[in-house]
Amino acid sequence: MKTYLDCFPCFMRQALFAARISTNDVKLQREVLNRVADELRRFPLDATPVEMGERIHNIVKEITGNKDPFKKEKEKYNKIAKGMLKELWELVKNADDQLLMAIRIAIAGNIIDFGSLTDFNIRASLNDAISQEFAIFDYDKFKEVLEKADEIMYIGDNAGEICFDKVLVEVLRNMGKKIYFITREEPIINDITIPDAEFCGMSKVAEVLSSGSVAPGTIIKHTTKTFQKLFYSVPMIIAKGQGNYETLSDEKRPIFFLLKVKCPVIARDIGAKNMDIVLKYNLA
Amino acid sequence: MKTYLDCFPCFMRQALFAARISTNDVKLQREVLNRVADELRRFPLDATPVEMGERIHNIVKEITGNKDPFKKEKEKYNKIAKGMLKELWELVKNADDQLLMAIRIAIAGNIIDFGSLTDFNIRASLNDAISQEFAIFDYDKFKEVLEKADEIMYIGDNAGEICFDKVLVEVLRNMGKKIYFITREEPIINDITIPDAEFCGMSKVAEVLSSGSVAPGTIIKHTTKTFQKLFYSVPMIIAKGQGNYETLSDEKRPIFFLLKVKCPVIARDIGAKNMDIVLKYNLA
Repeated sequence: MKTYLDCFPCFMRQALFAARISTNDVKLQREVLNRVADELRRFPLDATPVEMGERIHNIVKEITGNKDPFKKEKEKYNKIAKGMLKELWELVKNADDQLLMAIRIAIAGNIIDFGSLTDFNIRASLNDAISQEFAIFDYDKFKEVLEKADEIMYIGDNAGEICFDKVLVEVLRNMGKKIYFITREEPIINDITIPDAEFCGMSKVAEVLSSGSVAPGTIIKHTTKTFQKLFYSVPMIIAKGQGNYETLSDEKRPIFFLLKVKCPVIARDIGAKNMDIVLKYNLA
Repeated sequence: MKTYLDCFPCFMRQALFAARISTNDVKLQREVLNRVADELRRFPLDATPVEMGERIHNIVKEITGNKDPFKKEKEKYNKIAKGMLKELWELVKNADDQLLMAIRIAIAGNIIDFGSLTDFNIRASLNDAISQEFAIFDYDKFKEVLEKADEIMYIGDNAGEICFDKVLVEVLRNMGKKIYFITREEPIINDITIPDAEFCGMSKVAEVLSSGSVAPGTIIKHTTKTFQKLFYSVPMIIAKGQGNYETLSDEKRPIFFLLKVKCPVIARDIGAKNMDIVLKYNLA
């Protein structure tokens, strides 16, 4: 997905939010905004918004010296989400269509996104995702591709959310699939890295590896050779959240995007409305 | 009022909105955002947000060549508001406290503000303003200062809104007061200039003059000598809207600010909440 001019005010908003989480020093916060304003002037619109996100959060880290400003938030939401696992499994066990319920749960977890939102209600998101109609629902295609796939790449998104992902990963594993679960390389916003996967026990049910991307998405040219080899060979890819959609929507690969729309620009691009839930096949 | 870092994303939002109203050329819109980003880096936080607003809209005019991009919107809302005058007078005539009802009506008109909002419902604003409780209500002081005042300076704000102001101006004139009604010098956003005052017949009930300010507010150092002489001598000043609050709140003059709060930064500064209505005395 390309960058729209509507993203520019939002880049400044994200920069201010991250600067304030990183430091109380207003002079440093101002310095962050000035550097981001300078970057904005040079940023090409044919790049994805995630690439500007990467620049913004690198500027915040560089100026404030805080390398993991969302650390506390990540820990908090990992704990909350892990504490809900039993309840999530009850939902799956009682569902007529267990696979679909696990997909709905994984999407519900996608509300935990400090890139788009500054506060959110996980409980409300779960209730919505269980009953809400999908704005885009390529579920038949999902089952069709899944049936023939022995291996699946699952590109995760945020801390907390990863515990919800684990339910879907386990459902897929119980169907005999091998799952490669992908994290980011370094902390950025509240995106997952390897320690988050360890916290929720993901490595017990999937092979966990980092994509090598340090952006809040998956910028293919910045990923490792190992990741690229897998990405271009696996028969099925599940990509969670907006950042992965922004960076992968132009890839001609069998990707299923699972996300909750939290931004009007992405809503327009993907063909849905804000707060809609989406299961979209990239080759449709 | 000083500028807060929260204003920075909003400056970009305002710039994009004005650029899009002024031209369909995305390259020119981008050029506007780039120039505004550059200005942001130099903008001093001890200046008022209105001063940045002035720079933004001058950049839009310069780059797009459109000197009055909100012309159609101003004409539209002037007509709508003028068409409501009979109904507004009915409200005043049927009110127990006619002065207070006229104040409520003038505040209701303050919803017509393209600096803060991109769409609004005048009818809903009117209904709210008639019944809503004031967040700040220095009405006793208003009546006290009014009783001793023979002359009043009334600093207007936006097109459309000016027809609602005319009701209050007439109520004050019927109490034997002489009113100086102040407009901006040149078109900026949907702020009023002399032709708007003529359209609604303001010159029949008040002495209409421009402050000389070309900003969406009243930057004293940029106003005419005539305006300044009046401003520093009249015993009572009524100032409408956020832009006049931002630029005049630090002046030690008997100003009554009448406005509807439409911005979280101003809400915090003035001590109210978004969408609250305010009648605030500056020397309280």
